[in-house]
Amino acid sequence: MVVGNVMVGQSGGPTAVINSSLAGVYKTAIDCGVKTVYGMVNGIEGLSQNKYIDLSEYIKSNLEIELLKRTPASFLGTCRYKLPDVNVESAVYEKIFAVLKKLDVKYFFYIGGNDSMDTIMKLSNYAQTIGSDIRFIGIPKTIDNDLDMTDHTPGYGSASKYIATAIKEIICDANTYITDSISVVEIMGRNAGWLTAAAALSKCEDCAGPDLIYLPERVFDHNEFLKKVQEIKKEKKIVTIAVSEGIKTKDGKYVCEQNRTNNVTDSFGHKLLGGTAMYLSDFLVENTGIKTRGIVFSTLQRCASHVVSRSDITEAYMAGADGLKAALDGHTGKMIVFERVSNSPYLISTDLCDINIIANKEKCVPDSMISADGVGVTKEFEDYARPLIIGELYPFIVDGLPRHLHLGDRGIKG
Amino acid sequence: MVVGNVMVGQSGGPTAVINSSLAGVYKTAIDCGVKTVYGMVNGIEGLSQNKYIDLSEYIKSNLEIELLKRTPASFLGTCRYKLPDVNVESAVYEKIFAVLKKLDVKYFFYIGGNDSMDTIMKLSNYAQTIGSDIRFIGIPKTIDNDLDMTDHTPGYGSASKYIATAIKEIICDANTYITDSISVVEIMGRNAGWLTAAAALSKCEDCAGPDLIYLPERVFDHNEFLKKVQEIKKEKKIVTIAVSEGIKTKDGKYVCEQNRTNNVTDSFGHKLLGGTAMYLSDFLVENTGIKTRGIVFSTLQRCASHVVSRSDITEAYMAGADGLKAALDGHTGKMIVFERVSNSPYLISTDLCDINIIANKEKCVPDSMISADGVGVTKEFEDYARPLIIGELYPFIVDGLPRHLHLGDRGIKG
Repeated sequence: MVVGNVMVGQSGGPTAVINSSLAGVYKTAIDCGVKTVYGMVNGIEGLSQNKYIDLSEYIKSNLEIELLKRTPASFLGTCRYKLPDVNVESAVYEKIFAVLKKLDVKYFFYIGGNDSMDTIMKLSNYAQTIGSDIRFIGIPKTIDNDLDMTDHTPGYGSASKYIATAIKEIICDANTYITDSISVVEIMGRNAGWLTAAAALSKCEDCAGPDLIYLPERVFDHNEFLKKVQEIKKEKKIVTIAVSEGIKTKDGKYVCEQNRTNNVTDSFGHKLLGGTAMYLSDFLVENTGIKTRGIVFSTLQRCASHVVSRSDITEAYMAGADGLKAALDGHTGKMIVFERVSNSPYLISTDLCDINIIANKEKCVPDSMISADGVGVTKEFEDYARPLIIGELYPFIVDGLPRHLHLGDRGIKG
Repeated sequence: MVVGNVMVGQSGGPTAVINSSLAGVYKTAIDCGVKTVYGMVNGIEGLSQNKYIDLSEYIKSNLEIELLKRTPASFLGTCRYKLPDVNVESAVYEKIFAVLKKLDVKYFFYIGGNDSMDTIMKLSNYAQTIGSDIRFIGIPKTIDNDLDMTDHTPGYGSASKYIATAIKEIICDANTYITDSISVVEIMGRNAGWLTAAAALSKCEDCAGPDLIYLPERVFDHNEFLKKVQEIKKEKKIVTIAVSEGIKTKDGKYVCEQNRTNNVTDSFGHKLLGGTAMYLSDFLVENTGIKTRGIVFSTLQRCASHVVSRSDITEAYMAGADGLKAALDGHTGKMIVFERVSNSPYLISTDLCDINIIANKEKCVPDSMISADGVGVTKEFEDYARPLIIGELYPFIVDGLPRHLHLGDRGIKG
């Protein structure tokens, strides 16, 4: 029997495979002899308000573990709460550590992205200051793939598979008409263009893929954009354009802001984006007269349990499982990272990286993966990303619909 | 050996299963001993310009027939061309019948919706006038489910399955946050609310489904809408609303028009709709202050080969196959219709209906399927629609993406 219990939470935007990491933590903890695995309800924000559950009351069989793996979005609920600087306000830290002490928690796991790794960093540093022996491990998760020091992040592969699949189908649809048309597809990713770049993966034997890809890593210029579209239009009946929601003009303004009267921000002070596809679609109609449609993948790209990458869901589980083992082995203040052992066959192993190196950093698409003209990706990107969308894991289907596992009332009340 | 060849075409908006009907016509024709099965390229518009192919040059094996079944959008290309009144302009009729004569075509099939059945009606009536023995059969196809005289239309089941699946996942996503939120989901269907009604199917053991459903069959009132949302908000953290793109206020104006400066129409004179979700989402933010997101399913609801209903794809094939047999049996000027033999177990048979009764008519959701308060559906609708989304048929996956069959250059050039 392991001494001490486990506390695990989820934070930030949901993904299609975030619960697979939760399953990995839970199942491995039970297998290793941990007595109780607690789950924070709505992340650290919920925990600071004493909200948690005993996971064994909700996951009662191996079948339910499999169901949890196939459930999108955060089973435990999520939050976008940034811990204050401990020197400014320590009360919330004291609250959290009091709950952990009460529950005899010795192993703490937080499944999330950059902002969530900030939480792991602050808590593990605080633990050191007060001489606590609780171990804090970050489990990477983000569709944005913008965490540093890891080959990629769980969640990115499935979101990429969704994006590539959907763009392939959209091209299929556009191709059937006699009429010329332009499709502008808007994809998530504020500062890092990884997801938008994944649009390129739709190119394969039976699909030409997108003609232009606009990443937030490059400055957007309206005139050059129009020129490029007109050039391609000379050769092709239909044009497909993938744009990041986060593209900016050279004055540093988001393209989508040009379309909005009110600009809303989230609790981290990030601007809420959206409207880029509609804005550019209107811009193209006005300037070319060609039929244009703006398509926004919106929420579905991050919660489509019906299109997940099997390698992604397997790796997400592995990140949770290996995180648990690392904590039992005595590690703290670390995040699980992926290392690519080989590309063909595709092979990934996990390692640990100091959380202070990772937290609050954003990894953008490197120059070597962006084509010279700035509106496409290189072979290096394709070689990197293609293995991540391989393999399928279909949901459990009941009466024609994917079945998910929910946290009782919270789920069914939605 | 059957005397005479087959000509088959596709028309109107694509669906995920329209090519399964094409496969049904093709395979059955070959099995019945038809020498050549021609396909119109881009429907009747292409045919009138002498554009057609010999399908056997593109479908070379039973595997390719299976691949065709799983390919979304129109393999042969489509058109939105309305034949002129023969008394006003007969030239195009003469052109079409000249091509058919040249190719020794005796059996003509058109896979499409209301507008396409207008084509079958006009051609079969013209054939009668000139004493032609060519037989004209309509094969129903539309995600809108608005064709009269048939239990439902091929394409509707898969689009409904996509909508129900996606809404289930969107609710899953919204539920994970601490923050209250409202999701407004915009669904296709100009005058008939069948697709929007399908949002109700997301309700099941593990999902509460949408709270409000706004069909174009009911007048939309801004004040009542706001009142309903506020009422539900008192009881629930998250609210999910499904709206048809075609909802109108009592002055007969589309809700989405209130958001637009320019209004575009297609070649049938139909207004191009869109923007309802964004408009209502802005309306709710302004009036409630609650975080609201507008989600538009757009093109994907009609071309998602990655979520098809097995019963739909099977029935689409059957519609094509039985259409072919009916033409060989001597029928003309008819459309294939579905009759529901029983609901439990779900059993469908095909029959024929005079095309003059069907063409240019729109079947809306009947009062008995709309709840008394006008913002939901009844058990009768659910009993009707649930069997249509049952069963899965997964695409052929190559390197992580669905593989499709294309018409050579036209496909790959897209």
